Amino acid sequence: MAAKSIADTMTAAVMNGPGDLELTEVDVPEPGSGEVLVRVRACGVCGTDLEIRDYGWEGAKFPFVLGHEWTGEVVELGPDTTDIFSPGDRVASEPHDGCGLCVNCKVGKYTACLNYGEFSKGHKHHGFTVDGGYAKYSVMPEKLLHHLPEELSYQEGTLLTTAACSLYANERAGVEAGDFVAVIGPGAIGLLAAQIAKFRGASEVLVTGTRAPRLEAARAMGADHTVNVREEDPVAAAQELAGGKGPDTVIEAAGVHQAASQAIDMVRRGGRVGLVGNYGEGLAELDAQWIVSGDLDVTGVKAEGFNSIHRVTRLMSKRDFAMDPVLTHEFDLDEIETAMDTFENRRDGAIKVVVNI
Amino acid sequence: MAAKSIADTMTAAVMNGPGDLELTEVDVPEPGSGEVLVRVRACGVCGTDLEIRDYGWEGAKFPFVLGHEWTGEVVELGPDTTDIFSPGDRVASEPHDGCGLCVNCKVGKYTACLNYGEFSKGHKHHGFTVDGGYAKYSVMPEKLLHHLPEELSYQEGTLLTTAACSLYANERAGVEAGDFVAVIGPGAIGLLAAQIAKFRGASEVLVTGTRAPRLEAARAMGADHTVNVREEDPVAAAQELAGGKGPDTVIEAAGVHQAASQAIDMVRRGGRVGLVGNYGEGLAELDAQWIVSGDLDVTGVKAEGFNSIHRVTRLMSKRDFAMDPVLTHEFDLDEIETAMDTFENRRDGAIKVVVNI
Amino acid sequence: MAAKSIADTMTAAVMNGPGDLELTEVDVPEPGSGEVLVRVRACGVCGTDLEIRDYGWEGAKFPFVLGHEWTGEVVELGPDTTDIFSPGDRVASEPHDGCGLCVNCKVGKYTACLNYGEFSKGHKHHGFTVDGGYAKYSVMPEKLLHHLPEELSYQEGTLLTTAACSLYANERAGVEAGDFVAVIGPGAIGLLAAQIAKFRGASEVLVTGTRAPRLEAARAMGADHTVNVREEDPVAAAQELAGGKGPDTVIEAAGVHQAASQAIDMVRRGGRVGLVGNYGEGLAELDAQWIVSGDLDVTGVKAEGFNSIHRVTRLMSKRDFAMDPVLTHEFDLDEIETAMDTFENRRDGAIKVVVNI
Amino acid sequence: MAAKSIADTMTAAVMNGPGDLELTEVDVPEPGSGEVLVRVRACGVCGTDLEIRDYGWEGAKFPFVLGHEWTGEVVELGPDTTDIFSPGDRVASEPHDGCGLCVNCKVGKYTACLNYGEFSKGHKHHGFTVDGGYAKYSVMPEKLLHHLPEELSYQEGTLLTTAACSLYANERAGVEAGDFVAVIGPGAIGLLAAQIAKFRGASEVLVTGTRAPRLEAARAMGADHTVNVREEDPVAAAQELAGGKGPDTVIEAAGVHQAASQAIDMVRRGGRVGLVGNYGEGLAELDAQWIVSGDLDVTGVKAEGFNSIHRVTRLMSKRDFAMDPVLTHEFDLDEIETAMDTFENRRDGAIKVVVNI
Repeated sequence: MAAKSIADTMTAAVMNGPGDLELTEVDVPEPGSGEVLVRVRACGVCGTDLEIRDYGWEGAKFPFVLGHEWTGEVVELGPDTTDIFSPGDRVASEPHDGCGLCVNCKVGKYTACLNYGEFSKGHKHHGFTVDGGYAKYSVMPEKLLHHLPEELSYQEGTLLTTAACSLYANERAGVEAGDFVAVIGPGAIGLLAAQIAKFRGASEVLVTGTRAPRLEAARAMGADHTVNVREEDPVAAAQELAGGKGPDTVIEAAGVHQAASQAIDMVRRGGRVGLVGNYGEGLAELDAQWIVSGDLDVTGVKAEGFNSIHRVTRLMSKRDFAMDPVLTHEFDLDEIETAMDTFENRRDGAIKVVVNI
Repeated sequence: MAAKSIADTMTAAVMNGPGDLELTEVDVPEPGSGEVLVRVRACGVCGTDLEIRDYGWEGAKFPFVLGHEWTGEVVELGPDTTDIFSPGDRVASEPHDGCGLCVNCKVGKYTACLNYGEFSKGHKHHGFTVDGGYAKYSVMPEKLLHHLPEELSYQEGTLLTTAACSLYANERAGVEAGDFVAVIGPGAIGLLAAQIAKFRGASEVLVTGTRAPRLEAARAMGADHTVNVREEDPVAAAQELAGGKGPDTVIEAAGVHQAASQAIDMVRRGGRVGLVGNYGEGLAELDAQWIVSGDLDVTGVKAEGFNSIHRVTRLMSKRDFAMDPVLTHEFDLDEIETAMDTFENRRDGAIKVVVNI
Repeated sequence: MAAKSIADTMTAAVMNGPGDLELTEVDVPEPGSGEVLVRVRACGVCGTDLEIRDYGWEGAKFPFVLGHEWTGEVVELGPDTTDIFSPGDRVASEPHDGCGLCVNCKVGKYTACLNYGEFSKGHKHHGFTVDGGYAKYSVMPEKLLHHLPEELSYQEGTLLTTAACSLYANERAGVEAGDFVAVIGPGAIGLLAAQIAKFRGASEVLVTGTRAPRLEAARAMGADHTVNVREEDPVAAAQELAGGKGPDTVIEAAGVHQAASQAIDMVRRGGRVGLVGNYGEGLAELDAQWIVSGDLDVTGVKAEGFNSIHRVTRLMSKRDFAMDPVLTHEFDLDEIETAMDTFENRRDGAIKVVVNI
Repeated sequence: MAAKSIADTMTAAVMNGPGDLELTEVDVPEPGSGEVLVRVRACGVCGTDLEIRDYGWEGAKFPFVLGHEWTGEVVELGPDTTDIFSPGDRVASEPHDGCGLCVNCKVGKYTACLNYGEFSKGHKHHGFTVDGGYAKYSVMPEKLLHHLPEELSYQEGTLLTTAACSLYANERAGVEAGDFVAVIGPGAIGLLAAQIAKFRGASEVLVTGTRAPRLEAARAMGADHTVNVREEDPVAAAQELAGGKGPDTVIEAAGVHQAASQAIDMVRRGGRVGLVGNYGEGLAELDAQWIVSGDLDVTGVKAEGFNSIHRVTRLMSKRDFAMDPVLTHEFDLDEIETAMDTFENRRDGAIKVVVNI
């Protein structure tokens, strides 16, 4: 039963079905076995929020509360929980709730759960297929919470999921100390990936994109070189900057088929490519011969895998990590439409938009 | 200077230029610093021989002797050699002679030498850009020779380079004990890859192809399942055989763009794909979104990398390794045209054709 | 509530405290959230059973039912379970139940859960600190069950946990195709590790030990060489057999400090050593300089980590895997004392002893 | 033949035998096949120099010129060299010259060449077994040279070999972004390893040692915590600072058996230990049980392996890398005795001593 101080109902941004997002009053949830009730404080707007809003999501159990990049404060522990979290603890959440039984979940690849989207097999994706964080309260399995260090505000903490994708992209692509790294696509994931590449010892980082202000943000976050692909051929430019042979590692975060193609074209023989963009339908035209001749590694990067949130939390809280250039806007929950619009249309240079709750 | 028993000239299959392969008399070479003179005994016909014959090769230094899958006997050591080889030793050769200075060569990725094709930077590809093995004698850098165990005949030894590609494909694709492995393309590399997958502990191996006799050879070499792609959709068949979710690992050895596409389509979430085919020009249409959503590893496999010849030599000589289904034909050097024709047109069920010298 | 056909109580081998193992009547358990009730069919005797019997175990919650290598049949699903298991399914169990929240559990290293032995933090080790399988029924979290293929009997299935340790040892030690592998200690883990090394493509496997019948069993399971350490110096013998430089990989399964020392002494430069023995108290005297000079990898192997049960189940059920030489004895539950005595004192050549239930 | 401007003889620090280091006049060497003549500019004093001076080295070919951490300028190319280096190029050298044929050399583990110390099998260790850099000129195989970027002075360049060991230690120990890293032993390797750990994204770095000035240097190079092991128990302190469970990674650079023991004792379950110290004779008493129970990785770190000099050169030249706290003293070649004495007795706070030539 919920603590006395908690109201019975709350306002939430609820997905009733594809194309039907509604700000409405719902019951405050109660934590079940192994679950924790959290008072949500802030939730970031992600590109997939818009996709879910408009088209739904594989395996969605309508109606559910949208939002998956959120932080808050522990209110109450359900039965069968550990003593790892206590009421009052500041926490960040992780959205992928793998089945826990498949060959991927068992070895830390839970973002690629074999039972993805299959609720009856134990898979849940919080904020995608079941309740998420655009509400005053949310219930989460204990194992999907992380302590939010005092060095990070609730708003900064909403970046953790995104930054974890960026870190995982660096890890999957094998960015090494000394590497020349090219990052394609200066959205939030790309910008954070560029900065994290420097934290992994990249000697030089190039960011390519189409918008001057974003490339400026890239430089503010540590990029050594930027190329505007509207002005220069990014493949030729990357190879020249990297000394003729091409970058050691390329992270593709633009989510455009042509960019995936360029990522493979520009990397040096023996290099590594991490694809973290959201490509949607259709096929990319890739140079398969170069993948072979170059003995390349091309890796897919599915979200914040392999507990990368843990590592990026330590990185962001203990090191001098730039977040301001990315955290551009804040709104309240009742302004969620404006928040989404600001994000979607990149109004006023918006990169990351946070909804305070 | 060459030993007295060696003639001054020899017959060799010489590439004078693209489209100009000639069986002609040339000088017996002399070993330079760090080099060894070898009496060639057998040389296998490879698909790339035909490609070189017709179109030449990146960085070729015409004229040169063709042939890169060969075994023989050490005749004479050049200056500055070690005591690792002695006259009379039976040896197998390795064709990729990386520059030895670049970031790839230094860490065992010499088949992807950054200076590939650049003679002035120290790169040589024996039988591709400089002298190879379709001749009575060949000179090789000592470091490109391997002792040929007594358990392997000279003819069997010509398979080592090919089998090393197949092993490297298994290694790059990360075939693990317990895996369901699909191999696309039952040519020599694919058939050997299927068998090697079993030696790496694959629980089940599927081979897909278009020719019934080749699929029969696959079963003779240990494949548990075969699918004729002219009769069944290989993606659906592979997924069903693998229990619904798809193979854990896929090795694509057909060298056809559509097959590369199928390899990615059929693999399970979290799975691994190794591309070892020769795709040539053009682009493959690949599902980039699935690479990301599936957190896939797609790796290029450039030839017999990372000293795989050493490991496969031990595997083939010490274990009960089937070679007969692949070693289908033998010819003499003066029949090289027939040998190549037999291979190229798969006459009489030809898979691997060996030229005795 | 339990199904009608199930009795209220059952006989179980219960640990009341260190040195106090009792065959007694206890309540049949009921499955909680995410749990499954299983009718146990067979449970293997492990060396740690004896250790627990005599000394207890870190974090033990007395009283609890002993036994952790067991198979059975699903009887009933608790609340919040998936549809992955159904009543009647044949299953094998996995004992390590990590907290699910720590940095190790999150990435598949749950056998090394950071909260090992801390019940309040969610760690349970079934048969070690909480109820196991020496009883007619046992309750397990769904995620610790694996489908037992029809190719394996319940008795053979009790080997899965042990064989998974052996496989994990091969994986941690990085046994590669072509390797010369030395296995020290022909107990069940060592014998199975030797066989699995062959399945991973080892070209030659040496097993060293002190008992002739065990070395005979090793040869029956595929070892190419055996050395009786009472008759020969194992380090010298291993190096000679491996061609002078030492084995590529060594798996130490004897659990004796001196054997750990020998493992490091015998491996070649650049080689890999996996320690899977149970060494207990005291310190091993190891050549730290050789670890450095040899650029060695020395890895600890904590039980059936990283979902190795899944992979070994496929290996054992789909390939021609020898189990008979290891499965030497069977007893009934009321003979558990005799079973343990037979195992402990290796009576009648006992290697693995199974208790049918 | 040497260029006209080069004298016929030069002063060199020559090892005539164990205990017999002499500053004497020797012939200027001429580059052979694949070799390059370099005008040495600076050579760092390493702890192994003192060891070689006093006791010789495995496989030493007396007499030879001592010194292996050196930089200089290309003077002349021998025959069979590439166009990668040209006269006038600034270069740094790498001392390990593996046989190039063994299983380690072939895959980038040339510092652990299987033929280590065997000259007849092609192994040379420049400055250890054959001529090194305490002389005006030195001849090196082309493949052991690296371009020295203009951002690094000749003196700074002498740090590259040491820093490459530190980087390789980080790589072998698997330091990841977010890790709490403990470095034992604030000598040059340890101090540089601590700094490099930060460049690899370590969230916090602890350095333990016995000398206050060195711990101060550690803090100047980025260490977050230091512990004087004369005042505190380093195991308890490291575990407390790391939040109770121990560091994620430990790099042991003190080269003392007790420190190796502490490294293993302090690391968390599932953690990684890199041993890079020079332990010499005798055995370390290590907790083998903890290696197993903790599923630990204990890796030996043999010098500047796997082309780490390349990566560290890029790191040191392109990033803001602190070198001053380590580069404490400079001398001329005729003061080599004083240079060695200053280094050996750590006079005047000496950490790294450079000999200008």
